[in-house]
Amino acid sequence: MKLKPIAVVRNGIRGQTDDWDVVESRLVFEPEYVPGLEGLERFRHIWVVFGFHKKRGWVAKVHPMHDPSRPLVGVFATRSPTRPNKVGLTKVELVGVRGRTVTVKGLDAFDGSPVWDVKPFEDDIEDVYGWRRPRRKKT
Amino acid sequence: MKLKPIAVVRNGIRGQTDDWDVVESRLVFEPEYVPGLEGLERFRHIWVVFGFHKKRGWVAKVHPMHDPSRPLVGVFATRSPTRPNKVGLTKVELVGVRGRTVTVKGLDAFDGSPVWDVKPFEDDIEDVYGWRRPRRKKT
Repeated sequence: MKLKPIAVVRNGIRGQTDDWDVVESRLVFEPEYVPGLEGLERFRHIWVVFGFHKKRGWVAKVHPMHDPSRPLVGVFATRSPTRPNKVGLTKVELVGVRGRTVTVKGLDAFDGSPVWDVKPFEDDIEDVYGWRRPRRKKT
Repeated sequence: MKLKPIAVVRNGIRGQTDDWDVVESRLVFEPEYVPGLEGLERFRHIWVVFGFHKKRGWVAKVHPMHDPSRPLVGVFATRSPTRPNKVGLTKVELVGVRGRTVTVKGLDAFDGSPVWDVKPFEDDIEDVYGWRRPRRKKT
């Protein structure tokens, strides 16, 4: 399947940074997708699905937390970006929506990363739309 | 960006169903990706990133919860599958890992859907790897 970027990340960050949690990023949307943003501002948290556009290749086993003292595990048992499909997935704080720009805090994506999707955080959906999921038994 | 399926969903479900929460699905992995599954069985919940492979096109505005009595909102303010990139994202219960098959419960994907990625649920990472995130202020 081919993905088309709906937006691009702008945050000026081009290398590893210590604390992504404090980074503010602007997601600058392609004009055709801007009508799809209506109502997004009601959410406090959203998921951003984006591309690790600087990564090439993948490895089957990695050290969790980039910590070489930890035994190797499968890459799917980690959030490492060295995965077969370069899809990043991060829950971020929504700072604001203005025109074609969605500003978020806590996105661990480099400047220029393509954005594939944004989705409201599921717990906020209940609050925003006043709809409550049937309660599940704790599993 | 081009995505390559790492696995395919097998659950026999070919049309809308009432309660996806109870559906068990097998994610049948391509052999080359099986080494990447090592250690995944330690998690109770995982994210599945998959393709809405039967959907075509997208719409900018939808009724939340498929409820026509609710005012239209932008598609990005919902989880509707009628989005520009057909990427589904669901947190599921991990039932088990055996060989090339990962069995999960609660995945809202039709039989035959391509799987692009699986990632451990972030809260479980702390438990599994005994690592605790620096505590953030509630925002």
